[in-house]
Amino acid sequence: MKEKEIIDFLKKNFKSKKAFIGIGDDCAVIEYSKNYYLILTTDVLVENVHFEKGKFTWTQIGKKAMAVNLSDIAAMGGIPEFALVSLGLPESNFKIIKELAEGIKEMCKKYKFEIIGGNLTKSKEIFIDVFMVGIVEKKYLKTRKGTKSGDLIYVTGSLGASQIKKQFNLEPRIFEVREIVKKYKVNSMIDISDGLSSDLIKLCEVNKLGFKLYLENLPVSEEAKKISKDKFEEILHVLNDGEDYEILFTAGREEKIPEKIGKIKITKIGEMTGKREFIGILEDKIIEIKDKGFSHF
Amino acid sequence: MKEKEIIDFLKKNFKSKKAFIGIGDDCAVIEYSKNYYLILTTDVLVENVHFEKGKFTWTQIGKKAMAVNLSDIAAMGGIPEFALVSLGLPESNFKIIKELAEGIKEMCKKYKFEIIGGNLTKSKEIFIDVFMVGIVEKKYLKTRKGTKSGDLIYVTGSLGASQIKKQFNLEPRIFEVREIVKKYKVNSMIDISDGLSSDLIKLCEVNKLGFKLYLENLPVSEEAKKISKDKFEEILHVLNDGEDYEILFTAGREEKIPEKIGKIKITKIGEMTGKREFIGILEDKIIEIKDKGFSHF
Repeated sequence: MKEKEIIDFLKKNFKSKKAFIGIGDDCAVIEYSKNYYLILTTDVLVENVHFEKGKFTWTQIGKKAMAVNLSDIAAMGGIPEFALVSLGLPESNFKIIKELAEGIKEMCKKYKFEIIGGNLTKSKEIFIDVFMVGIVEKKYLKTRKGTKSGDLIYVTGSLGASQIKKQFNLEPRIFEVREIVKKYKVNSMIDISDGLSSDLIKLCEVNKLGFKLYLENLPVSEEAKKISKDKFEEILHVLNDGEDYEILFTAGREEKIPEKIGKIKITKIGEMTGKREFIGILEDKIIEIKDKGFSHF
Repeated sequence: MKEKEIIDFLKKNFKSKKAFIGIGDDCAVIEYSKNYYLILTTDVLVENVHFEKGKFTWTQIGKKAMAVNLSDIAAMGGIPEFALVSLGLPESNFKIIKELAEGIKEMCKKYKFEIIGGNLTKSKEIFIDVFMVGIVEKKYLKTRKGTKSGDLIYVTGSLGASQIKKQFNLEPRIFEVREIVKKYKVNSMIDISDGLSSDLIKLCEVNKLGFKLYLENLPVSEEAKKISKDKFEEILHVLNDGEDYEILFTAGREEKIPEKIGKIKITKIGEMTGKREFIGILEDKIIEIKDKGFSHF
Protein backbone atom coordinates (compact mmCIF):
# COMPACT_ATOMS: atom_id res chain seq x y z
CA MET A 1 0.00 0.00 0.00
CA LYS A 2 1.37 3.37 -1.01
CA GLU A 3 1.49 6.55 1.06
CA LYS A 4 -1.17 8.12 -1.18
CA GLU A 5 -3.60 5.23 -0.64
CA ILE A 6 -3.10 5.42 3.12
CA ILE A 7 -3.84 9.15 3.11
CA ASP A 8 -6.97 8.55 0.98
CA PHE A 9 -8.10 5.93 3.52
CA LEU A 10 -7.52 8.36 6.40
CA LYS A 11 -9.29 11.20 4.57
CA LYS A 12 -12.36 9.02 4.11
CA ASN A 13 -12.31 7.81 7.71
CA PHE A 14 -11.69 11.13 9.38
CA LYS A 15 -13.96 13.69 7.78
CA SER A 16 -14.21 16.84 9.83
CA LYS A 17 -17.39 18.82 10.37
CA LYS A 18 -15.92 21.46 12.67
CA ALA A 19 -12.73 22.35 10.77
CA PHE A 20 -12.70 24.61 7.72
CA ILE A 21 -10.11 22.26 6.14
CA GLY A 22 -9.23 18.83 7.55
CA ILE A 23 -6.83 16.15 6.30
CA GLY A 24 -5.37 16.68 2.82
CA ASP A 25 -3.72 20.10 2.61
CA ASP A 26 -0.40 21.44 3.90
CA CYS A 27 -2.14 22.57 7.12
CA ALA A 28 -5.51 21.99 8.76
CA VAL A 29 -7.56 25.19 9.00
CA ILE A 30 -9.94 26.08 11.82
CA GLU A 31 -11.97 29.17 12.67
CA TYR A 32 -10.16 31.69 14.84
CA SER A 33 -11.67 35.15 14.74
CA LYS A 34 -13.71 37.34 12.41
CA ASN A 35 -10.75 37.97 10.13
CA TYR A 36 -8.36 35.11 10.86
CA TYR A 37 -8.08 31.35 10.56
CA LEU A 38 -5.81 29.24 12.75
CA ILE A 39 -3.66 26.82 10.73
CA LEU A 40 -2.14 23.65 12.21
CA THR A 41 0.50 21.28 10.91
CA THR A 42 2.89 18.57 12.03
CA ASP A 43 6.08 17.19 10.53
CA VAL A 44 8.81 15.03 12.03
CA LEU A 45 12.49 14.24 11.50
CA VAL A 46 13.48 10.64 12.27
CA GLU A 47 17.06 9.42 12.65
CA ASN A 48 18.27 7.29 9.72
CA VAL A 49 15.24 8.36 7.69
CA HIS A 50 15.54 12.16 7.56
CA PHE A 51 19.04 12.56 8.99
CA GLU A 52 22.09 10.57 9.99
CA LYS A 53 23.90 11.31 13.22
CA GLY A 54 27.26 13.00 12.66
CA LYS A 55 26.58 14.23 9.14
CA PHE A 56 25.02 17.48 10.30
CA THR A 57 25.12 19.26 13.66
CA TRP A 58 22.19 19.01 16.09
CA THR A 59 21.76 22.77 15.69
CA GLN A 60 21.21 22.23 11.95
CA ILE A 61 18.81 19.38 12.66
CA GLY A 62 16.87 21.56 15.14
CA LYS A 63 16.62 24.27 12.48
CA LYS A 64 15.45 21.83 9.85
CA ALA A 65 12.77 20.39 12.16
CA MET A 66 11.31 23.89 12.40
CA ALA A 67 11.85 24.71 8.71
CA VAL A 68 9.83 21.80 7.34
CA ASN A 69 6.85 22.89 9.45
CA LEU A 70 7.33 26.58 8.62
CA SER A 71 7.19 25.59 4.96
CA ASP A 72 3.69 24.12 5.52
CA ILE A 73 2.60 27.36 7.21
CA ALA A 74 4.02 29.34 4.26
CA ALA A 75 2.10 27.12 1.81
CA MET A 76 -1.21 28.38 3.29
CA GLY A 77 -0.16 32.04 3.08
CA GLY A 78 0.23 32.08 6.87
CA ILE A 79 2.33 33.49 9.69
CA PRO A 80 3.81 31.09 12.31
CA GLU A 81 2.81 31.79 15.91
CA PHE A 82 3.52 28.80 18.20
CA ALA A 83 5.09 25.35 18.19
CA LEU A 84 5.16 22.29 20.45
CA VAL A 85 8.13 19.93 20.18
CA SER A 86 7.91 16.21 20.91
CA LEU A 87 11.40 14.79 21.33
CA GLY A 88 12.41 11.12 21.45
CA LEU A 89 15.93 10.29 22.69
CA PRO A 90 17.56 6.97 23.59
CA GLU A 91 19.13 8.48 26.68
CA SER A 92 19.34 11.78 28.47
CA ASN A 93 21.98 13.62 26.46
CA PHE A 94 22.31 17.26 27.40
CA LYS A 95 24.68 18.05 24.53
CA ILE A 96 22.06 17.02 21.96
CA ILE A 97 19.26 18.85 23.76
CA LYS A 98 21.33 22.04 24.09
CA GLU A 99 22.37 22.06 20.45
CA LEU A 100 18.88 21.24 19.18
CA ALA A 101 17.52 24.06 21.37
CA GLU A 102 20.03 26.48 19.83
CA GLY A 103 18.83 25.67 16.31
CA ILE A 104 15.20 25.91 17.37
CA LYS A 105 15.79 29.28 19.09
CA GLU A 106 17.48 30.66 15.99
CA MET A 107 14.39 29.82 13.91
CA CYS A 108 12.02 31.20 16.59
CA LYS A 109 13.84 34.50 16.43
CA LYS A 110 14.03 34.69 12.65
CA TYR A 111 10.41 33.67 11.98
CA LYS A 112 8.89 35.21 15.15
CA PHE A 113 7.18 32.19 16.67
CA GLU A 114 7.44 30.69 20.15
CA ILE A 115 7.87 27.21 21.60
CA ILE A 116 5.06 26.83 24.15
CA GLY A 117 5.10 23.15 25.00
CA GLY A 118 6.23 19.69 24.13
CA ASN A 119 7.03 16.25 25.34
CA LEU A 120 10.12 14.25 26.14
CA THR A 121 10.27 10.48 25.73
CA LYS A 122 12.69 7.63 25.52
CA SER A 123 13.05 6.06 22.06
CA LYS A 124 15.74 3.90 20.48
CA GLU A 125 16.06 6.20 17.47
CA ILE A 126 15.98 9.95 17.84
CA PHE A 127 12.95 11.82 16.53
CA ILE A 128 11.98 15.48 16.63
CA ASP A 129 8.28 15.86 15.98
CA VAL A 130 6.93 19.39 15.68
CA PHE A 131 3.39 20.68 15.90
CA MET A 132 3.10 24.20 14.54
CA VAL A 133 0.28 26.70 14.86
CA GLY A 134 -0.03 29.75 12.63
CA ILE A 135 -2.59 32.34 11.68
CA VAL A 136 -3.72 33.66 8.33
CA GLU A 137 -6.13 36.41 7.34
CA LYS A 138 -9.21 34.75 5.82
CA LYS A 139 -8.75 36.81 2.65
CA TYR A 140 -5.16 35.59 2.24
CA LEU A 141 -5.67 31.86 2.92
CA LYS A 142 -4.25 29.74 0.08
CA THR A 143 -4.96 26.03 -0.37
CA ARG A 144 -4.16 23.31 -2.89
CA LYS A 145 -7.65 23.68 -4.30
CA GLY A 146 -8.74 26.57 -6.47
CA THR A 147 -6.64 26.65 -9.62
CA LYS A 148 -8.18 26.64 -13.11
CA SER A 149 -7.15 25.42 -16.54
CA GLY A 150 -4.92 28.06 -18.14
CA ASP A 151 -3.46 29.31 -14.84
CA LEU A 152 0.29 29.78 -14.90
CA ILE A 153 2.50 27.80 -12.51
CA TYR A 154 5.22 29.56 -10.51
CA VAL A 155 7.85 28.35 -8.09
CA THR A 156 10.06 30.18 -5.56
CA GLY A 157 13.85 29.70 -5.44
CA SER A 158 15.62 26.86 -7.21
CA LEU A 159 15.11 23.10 -7.14
CA GLY A 160 17.03 19.83 -7.21
CA ALA A 161 19.79 18.08 -5.25
CA SER A 162 18.68 19.77 -2.02
CA GLN A 163 19.85 16.72 -0.06
CA ILE A 164 23.47 17.71 -0.77
CA LYS A 165 23.57 20.98 1.11
CA LYS A 166 20.39 23.00 1.17
CA GLN A 167 18.25 20.64 3.26
CA PHE A 168 19.97 21.72 6.48
CA ASN A 169 20.07 25.39 5.56
CA LEU A 170 16.44 25.76 4.63
CA GLU A 171 14.87 29.18 4.42
CA PRO A 172 11.14 28.56 4.47
CA ARG A 173 9.41 31.09 2.24
CA ILE A 174 7.24 32.74 4.91
CA PHE A 175 8.21 36.33 4.06
CA GLU A 176 8.14 35.88 0.28
CA VAL A 177 4.72 34.17 0.33
CA ARG A 178 3.29 36.93 2.52
CA GLU A 179 4.42 39.48 -0.08
CA ILE A 180 2.85 37.44 -2.86
CA VAL A 181 -0.53 36.80 -1.20
CA LYS A 182 -0.87 40.45 -0.18
CA LYS A 183 -0.16 41.84 -3.65
CA TYR A 184 -1.36 39.24 -6.15
CA LYS A 185 -4.34 37.01 -6.73
CA VAL A 186 -3.01 33.49 -6.25
CA ASN A 187 -5.38 30.59 -7.01
CA SER A 188 -3.62 27.63 -5.33
CA MET A 189 -0.47 26.87 -3.38
CA ILE A 190 1.53 23.85 -2.17
CA ASP A 191 5.02 23.37 -0.76
CA ILE A 192 7.51 21.19 -2.61
CA SER A 193 8.70 18.67 -0.07
CA ASP A 194 8.46 15.31 -1.87
CA GLY A 195 9.64 16.68 -5.23
CA LEU A 196 8.18 18.91 -7.94
CA SER A 197 6.66 15.99 -9.91
CA SER A 198 4.91 14.47 -6.87
CA ASP A 199 3.66 17.70 -5.39
CA LEU A 200 2.44 19.18 -8.67
CA ILE A 201 0.56 15.94 -9.43
CA LYS A 202 -1.05 16.18 -5.95
CA LEU A 203 -2.19 19.70 -6.81
CA CYS A 204 -3.62 18.45 -10.13
CA GLU A 205 -5.53 15.62 -8.46
CA VAL A 206 -7.24 17.95 -6.00
CA ASN A 207 -8.28 20.23 -8.87
CA LYS A 208 -8.94 17.46 -11.45
CA LEU A 209 -6.57 19.15 -13.88
CA GLY A 210 -3.31 18.43 -15.70
CA PHE A 211 -0.18 20.48 -16.37
CA LYS A 212 2.30 21.36 -19.05
CA LEU A 213 5.77 22.29 -17.78
CA TYR A 214 8.24 24.48 -19.71
CA LEU A 215 11.18 22.23 -18.85
CA GLU A 216 13.79 24.68 -20.15
CA ASN A 217 12.51 27.26 -17.69
CA LEU A 218 12.90 25.12 -14.54
CA PRO A 219 15.07 26.86 -11.92
CA VAL A 220 17.96 24.41 -11.47
CA SER A 221 19.92 24.72 -8.23
CA GLU A 222 23.70 25.13 -8.32
CA GLU A 223 24.07 21.72 -6.66
CA ALA A 224 21.89 19.98 -9.27
CA LYS A 225 23.96 21.62 -12.03
CA LYS A 226 27.17 20.39 -10.47
CA ILE A 227 26.10 16.75 -10.30
CA SER A 228 24.38 16.60 -13.73
CA LYS A 229 26.16 15.73 -16.94
CA ASP A 230 23.56 17.37 -19.20
CA LYS A 231 20.39 19.46 -19.26
CA PHE A 232 18.18 16.37 -19.17
CA GLU A 233 19.77 15.11 -15.97
CA GLU A 234 19.37 18.55 -14.39
CA ILE A 235 15.66 18.41 -15.21
CA LEU A 236 15.31 15.00 -13.58
CA HIS A 237 16.88 16.34 -10.39
CA VAL A 238 14.52 19.30 -10.38
CA LEU A 239 11.47 17.11 -11.00
CA ASN A 240 12.16 14.24 -8.65
CA ASP A 241 14.51 15.15 -5.80
CA GLY A 242 12.71 15.91 -2.58
CA GLU A 243 13.46 18.27 0.31
CA ASP A 244 13.40 21.53 -1.68
CA TYR A 245 10.85 23.23 0.59
CA GLU A 246 10.11 25.83 -2.03
CA ILE A 247 6.57 27.06 -2.72
CA LEU A 248 4.65 26.32 -5.90
CA PHE A 249 1.66 28.48 -6.74
CA THR A 250 -0.68 29.19 -9.62
CA ALA A 251 -2.22 32.44 -10.80
CA GLY A 252 -4.26 33.71 -13.74
CA ARG A 253 -2.39 34.89 -16.85
CA GLU A 254 -3.40 38.50 -16.15
CA GLU A 255 -1.55 38.59 -12.78
CA LYS A 256 1.75 40.41 -13.04
CA ILE A 257 3.79 38.08 -10.80
CA PRO A 258 7.28 39.60 -10.34
CA GLU A 259 10.51 37.74 -11.21
CA LYS A 260 11.90 38.27 -7.74
CA ILE A 261 10.72 38.90 -4.18
CA GLY A 262 13.66 40.37 -2.29
CA LYS A 263 16.55 38.13 -3.24
CA ILE A 264 14.37 35.13 -4.05
CA LYS A 265 13.70 34.29 -7.68
CA ILE A 266 10.14 33.51 -8.81
CA THR A 267 10.04 31.39 -11.98
CA LYS A 268 7.14 30.74 -14.32
CA ILE A 269 7.52 27.00 -14.98
CA GLY A 270 4.35 26.00 -16.80
CA GLU A 271 0.58 26.09 -16.96
CA MET A 272 -2.43 24.14 -15.76
CA THR A 273 -4.43 22.32 -18.41
CA GLY A 274 -7.97 20.97 -18.58
CA LYS A 275 -6.81 17.52 -19.72
CA ARG A 276 -5.67 14.99 -17.13
CA GLU A 277 -2.19 14.91 -18.65
CA PHE A 278 1.12 15.51 -16.89
CA ILE A 279 3.59 16.65 -19.54
CA GLY A 280 6.73 18.68 -20.08
CA ILE A 281 7.91 20.49 -23.23
CA LEU A 282 11.62 20.38 -24.04
CA GLU A 283 12.85 21.72 -27.40
CA ASP A 284 9.44 21.04 -28.97
CA LYS A 285 9.41 17.45 -27.68
CA ILE A 286 6.61 16.36 -25.37
CA ILE A 287 7.71 14.31 -22.38
CA GLU A 288 5.36 12.52 -20.00
CA ILE A 289 6.05 13.37 -16.36
CA LYS A 290 5.60 10.66 -13.75
CA ASP A 291 5.26 10.93 -9.98
CA LYS A 292 8.80 9.97 -9.01
CA GLY A 293 9.29 12.10 -5.93
CA PHE A 294 9.91 10.90 -2.40
CA SER A 295 7.51 8.48 -0.75
CA HIS A 296 7.99 6.93 2.70
CA PHE A 297 6.66 3.55 1.61
CA MET B 1 20.61 14.62 33.60
CA LYS B 2 17.08 13.95 34.77
CA GLU B 3 13.85 14.66 32.90
CA LYS B 4 13.02 17.43 35.39
CA GLU B 5 16.33 19.23 34.81
CA ILE B 6 15.84 19.05 31.04
CA ILE B 7 12.37 20.56 31.37
CA ASP B 8 13.75 23.32 33.62
CA PHE B 9 16.42 24.05 30.98
CA LEU B 10 13.76 24.21 28.24
CA LYS B 11 11.47 26.40 30.37
CA LYS B 12 14.30 28.91 30.84
CA ASN B 13 15.26 28.85 27.17
CA PHE B 14 11.78 29.07 25.71
CA LYS B 15 9.86 31.71 27.61
CA SER B 16 6.73 32.77 25.81
CA LYS B 17 5.45 36.33 25.58
CA LYS B 18 2.43 35.63 23.41
CA ALA B 19 0.99 32.56 25.16
CA PHE B 20 -1.05 32.79 28.37
CA ILE B 21 0.76 29.67 29.64
CA GLY B 22 3.85 28.18 27.95
CA ILE B 23 6.02 25.17 28.86
CA GLY B 24 5.36 23.63 32.28
CA ASP B 25 1.69 22.73 32.65
CA ASP B 26 -0.40 19.86 31.25
CA CYS B 27 -1.29 22.02 28.23
CA ALA B 28 -0.09 25.28 26.73
CA VAL B 29 -2.77 27.98 26.84
CA ILE B 30 -3.29 30.69 24.23
CA GLU B 31 -5.91 33.38 23.70
CA TYR B 32 -8.88 32.30 21.60
CA SER B 33 -11.93 34.48 22.04
CA LYS B 34 -13.51 36.77 24.59
CA ASN B 35 -14.63 33.86 26.76
CA TYR B 36 -12.39 30.98 25.69
CA TYR B 37 -8.77 29.90 25.71
CA LEU B 38 -7.31 27.40 23.28
CA ILE B 39 -5.31 24.64 25.00
CA LEU B 40 -2.62 22.59 23.22
CA THR B 41 -0.80 19.43 24.22
CA THR B 42 1.27 16.59 22.80
CA ASP B 43 1.99 13.08 24.00
CA VAL B 44 3.43 10.08 22.20
CA LEU B 45 3.42 6.27 22.47
CA VAL B 46 6.67 4.61 21.39
CA GLU B 47 7.08 0.89 20.71
CA ASN B 48 9.06 -0.93 23.42
CA VAL B 49 8.77 2.11 25.70
CA HIS B 50 5.01 2.59 26.07
CA PHE B 51 3.79 -0.64 24.50
CA GLU B 52 5.02 -3.95 23.16
CA LYS B 53 3.73 -5.35 19.89
CA GLY B 54 1.37 -8.29 20.37
CA LYS B 55 0.53 -7.61 24.01
CA PHE B 56 -2.37 -5.34 23.17
CA THR B 57 -4.32 -4.82 19.95
CA TRP B 58 -3.59 -1.85 17.69
CA THR B 59 -7.13 -0.65 18.37
CA GLN B 60 -6.28 -0.49 22.08
CA ILE B 61 -3.02 1.30 21.31
CA GLY B 62 -4.86 3.81 19.11
CA LYS B 63 -7.31 4.45 21.95
CA LYS B 64 -4.53 4.90 24.46
CA ALA B 65 -2.66 7.36 22.20
CA MET B 66 -5.78 9.54 22.31
CA ALA B 67 -6.50 8.93 26.00
CA VAL B 68 -3.14 10.20 27.29
CA ASN B 69 -3.68 13.47 25.43
CA LEU B 70 -7.32 13.74 26.48
CA SER B 71 -6.14 13.42 30.06
CA ASP B 72 -3.98 16.55 29.59
CA ILE B 73 -6.99 18.41 28.20
CA ALA B 74 -9.07 17.25 31.20
CA ALA B 75 -6.35 18.48 33.60
CA MET B 76 -6.95 22.07 32.39
CA GLY B 77 -10.73 21.82 32.79
CA GLY B 78 -11.07 21.71 29.00
CA ILE B 79 -13.02 20.15 26.16
CA PRO B 80 -11.17 18.38 23.30
CA GLU B 81 -11.83 19.75 19.82
CA PHE B 82 -9.20 18.59 17.30
CA ALA B 83 -6.17 16.32 17.00
CA LEU B 84 -3.33 15.76 14.54
CA VAL B 85 -1.67 12.35 14.46
CA SER B 86 1.96 11.83 13.50
CA LEU B 87 2.57 8.16 12.78
CA GLY B 88 5.91 6.38 12.33
CA LEU B 89 5.91 2.87 10.84
CA PRO B 90 8.75 0.64 9.60
CA GLU B 91 6.73 -0.35 6.55
CA SER B 92 3.39 0.26 4.99
CA ASN B 93 1.13 -2.07 6.98
CA PHE B 94 -2.55 -1.53 6.27
CA LYS B 95 -3.66 -3.87 9.07
CA ILE B 96 -1.94 -1.72 11.70
CA ILE B 97 -3.23 1.52 10.18
CA LYS B 98 -6.80 0.21 9.96
CA GLU B 99 -6.84 -1.06 13.54
CA LEU B 100 -5.22 2.09 14.93
CA ALA B 101 -7.80 4.15 13.03
CA GLU B 102 -10.61 2.13 14.60
CA GLY B 103 -9.37 2.87 18.11
CA ILE B 104 -8.87 6.53 17.27
CA LYS B 105 -12.37 6.81 15.76
CA GLU B 106 -13.91 5.23 18.85
CA MET B 107 -12.31 7.91 21.04
CA CYS B 108 -13.28 10.70 18.60
CA LYS B 109 -16.90 9.62 18.88
CA LYS B 110 -16.91 9.22 22.66
CA TYR B 111 -15.09 12.47 23.45
CA LYS B 112 -16.44 14.49 20.50
CA PHE B 113 -13.20 15.64 18.86
CA GLU B 114 -12.00 15.31 15.27
CA ILE B 115 -8.79 14.26 13.56
CA ILE B 116 -7.96 17.10 11.15
CA GLY B 117 -4.42 16.34 10.07
CA GLY B 118 -1.27 14.42 10.63
CA ASN B 119 1.85 13.01 9.13
CA LEU B 120 3.10 9.63 8.02
CA THR B 121 6.76 8.66 8.16
CA LYS B 122 9.02 5.67 8.03
CA SER B 123 10.68 4.76 11.34
CA LYS B 124 12.31 1.59 12.61
CA GLU B 125 10.17 1.54 15.76
CA ILE B 126 6.51 2.42 15.64
CA PHE B 127 5.41 5.68 17.26
CA ILE B 128 2.04 7.41 17.48
CA ASP B 129 2.50 11.04 18.35
CA VAL B 130 -0.62 13.08 18.97
CA PHE B 131 -1.16 16.84 19.07
CA MET B 132 -4.42 17.76 20.66
CA VAL B 133 -6.26 21.05 20.69
CA GLY B 134 -9.03 21.86 23.14
CA ILE B 135 -10.96 24.84 24.38
CA VAL B 136 -11.83 25.98 27.88
CA GLU B 137 -13.93 28.84 29.18
CA LYS B 138 -11.58 31.39 30.74
CA LYS B 139 -13.51 31.18 34.01
CA TYR B 140 -13.06 27.38 34.15
CA LEU B 141 -9.35 27.14 33.24
CA LYS B 142 -7.44 25.12 35.85
CA THR B 143 -3.65 24.97 36.07
CA ARG B 144 -1.04 23.45 38.34
CA LYS B 145 -0.54 26.82 39.96
CA GLY B 146 -3.01 28.34 42.40
CA THR B 147 -3.35 26.08 45.42
CA LYS B 148 -2.81 27.35 48.97
CA SER B 149 -1.65 25.85 52.26
CA GLY B 150 -4.62 24.15 53.91
CA ASP B 151 -6.33 23.21 50.62
CA LEU B 152 -7.61 19.64 50.50
CA ILE B 153 -6.29 17.23 47.88
CA TYR B 154 -8.72 15.09 45.85
CA VAL B 155 -8.26 12.44 43.21
CA THR B 156 -10.65 10.84 40.71
CA GLY B 157 -11.02 7.06 40.34
CA SER B 158 -8.52 4.62 41.80
CA LEU B 159 -4.75 4.32 41.50
CA GLY B 160 -1.99 1.74 41.24
CA ALA B 161 -0.98 -1.18 39.01
CA SER B 162 -2.57 0.48 35.97
CA GLN B 163 0.04 -1.16 33.75
CA ILE B 164 -1.67 -4.54 34.33
CA LYS B 165 -4.98 -3.80 32.69
CA LYS B 166 -6.26 -0.28 32.93
CA GLN B 167 -3.62 1.45 30.80
CA PHE B 168 -5.21 0.22 27.56
CA ASN B 169 -8.77 0.85 28.73
CA LEU B 170 -8.29 4.40 29.88
CA GLU B 171 -11.26 6.65 30.42
CA PRO B 172 -9.86 10.15 30.53
CA ARG B 173 -11.81 12.24 33.02
CA ILE B 174 -13.10 14.87 30.59
CA PHE B 175 -16.77 14.64 31.65
CA GLU B 176 -16.10 14.34 35.38
CA VAL B 177 -13.71 17.31 35.41
CA ARG B 178 -16.21 19.44 33.50
CA GLU B 179 -18.80 18.69 36.19
CA ILE B 180 -16.31 19.62 38.91
CA VAL B 181 -15.06 22.88 37.41
CA LYS B 182 -18.58 24.07 36.65
CA LYS B 183 -19.90 23.42 40.17
CA TYR B 184 -16.99 23.87 42.56
CA LYS B 185 -14.12 26.27 43.12
CA VAL B 186 -11.01 24.25 42.33
CA ASN B 187 -7.63 25.88 43.02
CA SER B 188 -5.23 23.67 41.05
CA MET B 189 -5.26 20.57 38.88
CA ILE B 190 -2.83 18.06 37.34
CA ASP B 191 -3.20 14.67 35.72
CA ILE B 192 -1.51 11.65 37.28
CA SER B 193 0.55 10.10 34.51
CA ASP B 194 3.98 9.51 36.07
CA GLY B 195 2.58 8.43 39.45
CA LEU B 196 0.88 10.13 42.40
CA SER B 197 4.16 10.86 44.24
CA SER B 198 5.85 12.42 41.18
CA ASP B 199 2.90 14.44 40.01
CA LEU B 200 1.90 15.72 43.45
CA ILE B 201 5.51 16.81 44.07
CA LYS B 202 5.44 18.67 40.72
CA LEU B 203 2.29 20.47 41.89
CA CYS B 204 4.00 21.38 45.17
CA GLU B 205 7.07 22.74 43.43
CA VAL B 206 5.04 25.08 41.26
CA ASN B 207 3.21 26.38 44.32
CA LYS B 208 6.20 26.27 46.72
CA LEU B 209 4.19 24.15 49.13
CA GLY B 210 4.28 20.69 50.73
CA PHE B 211 1.63 18.03 51.34
CA LYS B 212 0.39 15.61 53.93
CA LEU B 213 -1.34 12.51 52.53
CA TYR B 214 -3.89 10.43 54.47
CA LEU B 215 -2.37 7.14 53.30
CA GLU B 216 -5.25 5.03 54.62
CA ASN B 217 -7.64 6.99 52.41
CA LEU B 218 -5.82 6.40 49.13
CA PRO B 219 -8.14 4.83 46.52
CA VAL B 220 -6.41 1.53 45.75
CA SER B 221 -7.31 -0.10 42.43
CA GLU B 222 -8.52 -3.73 42.34
CA GLU B 223 -5.37 -4.68 40.42
CA ALA B 224 -3.07 -3.11 43.01
CA LYS B 225 -4.96 -4.96 45.77
CA LYS B 226 -4.53 -8.26 43.94
CA ILE B 227 -0.76 -7.97 43.57
CA SER B 228 -0.06 -6.58 47.06
CA LYS B 229 0.61 -8.72 50.12
CA ASP B 230 -0.29 -5.97 52.62
CA LYS B 231 -1.64 -2.44 52.99
CA PHE B 232 1.83 -0.95 52.83
CA GLU B 233 2.52 -2.54 49.47
CA GLU B 234 -0.83 -1.30 48.15
CA ILE B 235 0.15 2.22 49.17
CA LEU B 236 3.48 1.95 47.33
CA HIS B 237 1.63 0.93 44.15
CA VAL B 238 -0.75 3.87 44.49
CA LEU B 239 2.09 6.33 45.12
CA ASN B 240 4.61 5.21 42.55
CA ASP B 241 3.04 3.30 39.64
CA GLY B 242 2.52 5.44 36.59
CA GLU B 243 -0.12 5.41 33.84
CA ASP B 244 -3.16 6.05 36.03
CA TYR B 245 -4.38 9.05 34.05
CA GLU B 246 -6.63 10.13 36.87
CA ILE B 247 -7.01 13.79 37.84
CA LEU B 248 -5.69 15.28 41.06
CA PHE B 249 -7.10 18.61 42.22
CA THR B 250 -7.13 20.83 45.26
CA ALA B 251 -9.90 22.95 46.76
CA GLY B 252 -10.54 24.99 49.87
CA ARG B 253 -11.89 23.21 52.93
CA GLU B 254 -15.23 25.00 52.55
CA GLU B 255 -15.93 23.45 49.12
CA LYS B 256 -18.42 20.59 49.30
CA ILE B 257 -16.69 18.27 46.82
CA PRO B 258 -18.96 15.21 46.25
CA GLU B 259 -17.80 11.64 46.80
CA LYS B 260 -18.81 10.64 43.30
CA ILE B 261 -19.37 12.18 39.88
CA GLY B 262 -21.54 9.73 37.94
CA LYS B 263 -19.91 6.38 38.56
CA ILE B 264 -16.48 7.81 39.29
CA LYS B 265 -15.31 8.05 42.88
CA ILE B 266 -13.72 11.26 44.16
CA THR B 267 -11.47 10.69 47.17
CA LYS B 268 -10.06 13.22 49.63
CA ILE B 269 -6.46 12.00 49.98
CA GLY B 270 -4.70 14.74 51.92
CA GLU B 271 -3.95 18.43 52.29
CA MET B 272 -1.47 21.03 51.11
CA THR B 273 0.89 22.41 53.74
CA GLY B 274 2.99 25.56 54.02
CA LYS B 275 6.17 23.62 54.83
CA ARG B 276 8.25 22.13 51.98
CA GLU B 277 7.64 18.64 53.32
CA PHE B 278 6.21 15.67 51.44
CA ILE B 279 4.72 13.32 54.01
CA GLY B 280 2.10 10.66 54.51
CA ILE B 281 0.26 9.67 57.70
CA LEU B 282 -0.37 5.96 58.30
CA GLU B 283 -1.74 4.83 61.68
CA ASP B 284 -0.23 7.90 63.38
CA LYS B 285 3.19 7.24 61.83
CA ILE B 286 4.71 9.92 59.63
CA ILE B 287 6.29 8.61 56.45
CA GLU B 288 8.41 10.69 54.09
CA ILE B 289 7.20 10.43 50.49
CA LYS B 290 9.78 10.49 47.72
CA ASP B 291 9.41 11.12 44.01
CA LYS B 292 9.52 7.54 42.79
CA GLY B 293 7.17 7.73 39.85
CA PHE B 294 8.00 7.11 36.23
CA SER B 295 10.79 9.06 34.53
CA HIS B 296 11.98 8.50 30.96
CA PHE B 297 15.63 9.04 31.87
